[in-house]
Amino acid sequence: MDLFAKCDAKNTPLGKYSDVDEGYYMFPKLEGEIGPRMTFQGRQVLNWSLNNYLGLANHPEIRQADAQAAADWGLAYPMGARIMSGNTVKHEQLERELADFVGKEDCFLLNFGYQGVVSIIDAVLDRRDVVVYDAESHACILDGLRLHIGKRFVYAHNDMESLEKQLERAERLAKETGGGILVITEGVFGMSGVMGNLPGVIKLKEKYDFRLFVDDAHGFGTMGATGAGTGEQLECQDGIDLYFSTFAKSMASIGAFVAGDEKIVKYLRYSLRSQIFAKSLPMPLVVGNLKRLEMLKNSPAKDKLWEVVNALQSGLKERGFNIGHTQTPVTPVFLSGTMLEAANLTQDIRERFNIFCSIVIYPVIPKGQIMLRLIPTAAHTLADVEETINAFAEIKDKLEAGEYNKDGVAEQMPD
Amino acid sequence: MDLFAKCDAKNTPLGKYSDVDEGYYMFPKLEGEIGPRMTFQGRQVLNWSLNNYLGLANHPEIRQADAQAAADWGLAYPMGARIMSGNTVKHEQLERELADFVGKEDCFLLNFGYQGVVSIIDAVLDRRDVVVYDAESHACILDGLRLHIGKRFVYAHNDMESLEKQLERAERLAKETGGGILVITEGVFGMSGVMGNLPGVIKLKEKYDFRLFVDDAHGFGTMGATGAGTGEQLECQDGIDLYFSTFAKSMASIGAFVAGDEKIVKYLRYSLRSQIFAKSLPMPLVVGNLKRLEMLKNSPAKDKLWEVVNALQSGLKERGFNIGHTQTPVTPVFLSGTMLEAANLTQDIRERFNIFCSIVIYPVIPKGQIMLRLIPTAAHTLADVEETINAFAEIKDKLEAGEYNKDGVAEQMPD
Repeated sequence: MDLFAKCDAKNTPLGKYSDVDEGYYMFPKLEGEIGPRMTFQGRQVLNWSLNNYLGLANHPEIRQADAQAAADWGLAYPMGARIMSGNTVKHEQLERELADFVGKEDCFLLNFGYQGVVSIIDAVLDRRDVVVYDAESHACILDGLRLHIGKRFVYAHNDMESLEKQLERAERLAKETGGGILVITEGVFGMSGVMGNLPGVIKLKEKYDFRLFVDDAHGFGTMGATGAGTGEQLECQDGIDLYFSTFAKSMASIGAFVAGDEKIVKYLRYSLRSQIFAKSLPMPLVVGNLKRLEMLKNSPAKDKLWEVVNALQSGLKERGFNIGHTQTPVTPVFLSGTMLEAANLTQDIRERFNIFCSIVIYPVIPKGQIMLRLIPTAAHTLADVEETINAFAEIKDKLEAGEYNKDGVAEQMPD
Repeated sequence: MDLFAKCDAKNTPLGKYSDVDEGYYMFPKLEGEIGPRMTFQGRQVLNWSLNNYLGLANHPEIRQADAQAAADWGLAYPMGARIMSGNTVKHEQLERELADFVGKEDCFLLNFGYQGVVSIIDAVLDRRDVVVYDAESHACILDGLRLHIGKRFVYAHNDMESLEKQLERAERLAKETGGGILVITEGVFGMSGVMGNLPGVIKLKEKYDFRLFVDDAHGFGTMGATGAGTGEQLECQDGIDLYFSTFAKSMASIGAFVAGDEKIVKYLRYSLRSQIFAKSLPMPLVVGNLKRLEMLKNSPAKDKLWEVVNALQSGLKERGFNIGHTQTPVTPVFLSGTMLEAANLTQDIRERFNIFCSIVIYPVIPKGQIMLRLIPTAAHTLADVEETINAFAEIKDKLEAGEYNKDGVAEQMPD
């Protein structure tokens, strides 16, 4: 049996329509400067698909810092893994500044968020340990858990009763094995915009002995009085034992960090396989992230962001849209419809209304649902919000009138 | 039981001496322009520790290209995962050029090599499949294998008899499960410098039905007539089904690629979890890698590299050093000694001879061995080679005379 026989893009959830839609629904090219107005297939679109929450990606000071850093250092330096030959004073400076900002003793920079999370989970767990995690955890958390040989228990999304039930099971098991317990959740769930119930989780520490890892990818920079994230927002940062964020969202960069008590961070420095066996974050990205961090702290852009967020979310609700239970900038719009309708609707939004946003369908959400996900940023205007709400209202009417159940690109699609 | 109770850096192989040696053996800072002469703790050292094989890291044309790309694009663009919103014409151009260069139909860019390899292995295997891999495979391969639920068989390093034995077992099992077989090896083993016996592996395809994945991190750019890697060098590129290299070595960048037949590459585009759920490689790195690839192809620097490699390796052998069986630029120097001797010797090399190279000890290699690893590059001179061989000869004499069994930094070390 040929190993590759089963390996056909058309058999994958995302590649099902790859013969007809490549470059349109999947692998689209958004061209021009990152911002609310970008070019898609030669036409200007109003873009709501990028996690550039604070508008830092193309801020003139950031662009200047990025250009200067690359001119000063090139993109190669330093080479090798951080522990072997890839360390610099700037890497250490960024770690100190991040630790201070998120209120932790120490911090370890990660060369990439995805593999960083996988390795953190791998490093703190051994086979005796038990992990308890939120059902809607991000792919990088799930892949980290797949490396765990011991037991794992999943709790219903943000459901503290379910978490407690699983902690009871975990505690019984950990007593048998002599292991410890790790709870994993997120600061902000990136699909729904709902915050993790961090105070609820942390309250359970009074009854159960566990450590808490929080992935705050979407919360860092957008939540909390200073922008230090969901732990700050919910006034429970001290209860988070390992605070993680990527630089790929508000920071508009790559790389990531994990912060916590000095002892555990030092342990992670010597233990994370993706950091020991892979190259350090290049210097211009470190210098660029130092500049981003400076601008992100107490940023006036966060107020601007929330002005746009509030206008968008209240406007959508007023027009009768179901935006779920978001508490953060992430703005999902839930509609009902078939795959054919989802495809036609997306095409209409892009072609006729010149609006570009992410569309999420089965298997990420249940069959029969269509989720349009809007990511407002500080760079959007209230006029952008109005234009979008008006367009969405028209689209909703057409969907409900069955108009997307007809022709369009979707006709060419296989079942 | 506190989950973190076991998490002490001092209990890790690399962190054992972290209280005394941080910044010296582990997390050292090499400062200044990447090249043979860099600064370590304020002193100029002759540096043999970076995989900048072709000297591209600080080539004026590369520095210019990097600076220009960051000025043109900033370091943020594009944002989001490649499949969602992170695609550009430059990403696609780099893929086409890489595919052409390594003689494959298609190629998929990866945002980071480590997580790229993990996801490739994960994506092509299901629980019915059987994987057979070289015992000295890199950490990223081993972590990819840890995600595999089905059977895995390890074969003795580069031992074709052992491989065949495991293929027989794998074939019996795959017939039962209805799965396929994946063989994994490397083009160049980064510790020993030995090439993977790729023709030997590929010859076994005549008897066994399997696909071959080769990680050519150290071969790409250094091996083969045009620099297209170990498959080109050994005239067996067509037998490699998935050809992988990172950009972190000869390309002096970050990111990676995987190349193969169109159908399997298309499948990977829609299947790799670390690519679907994490950010695309930033544009300046893509543009910088286009420039690097242009310079790497048929590079005269490769001839210069091999002149240095040959002088270094033959010089060391003439002076009686054991450099193992390297066939590539990677140059290990094997000595016998205790941990104390290894520490004192390293200190002497750095402090008195001003030479900086990697030192590898137990548990990476057996107890009682010390491996110094030299990475020659096109930027080194024959005078650098002579200086180093003379220094190593003195060090060897001192080691054999028992002089490193005395005082030094190692005295402060715990047992």
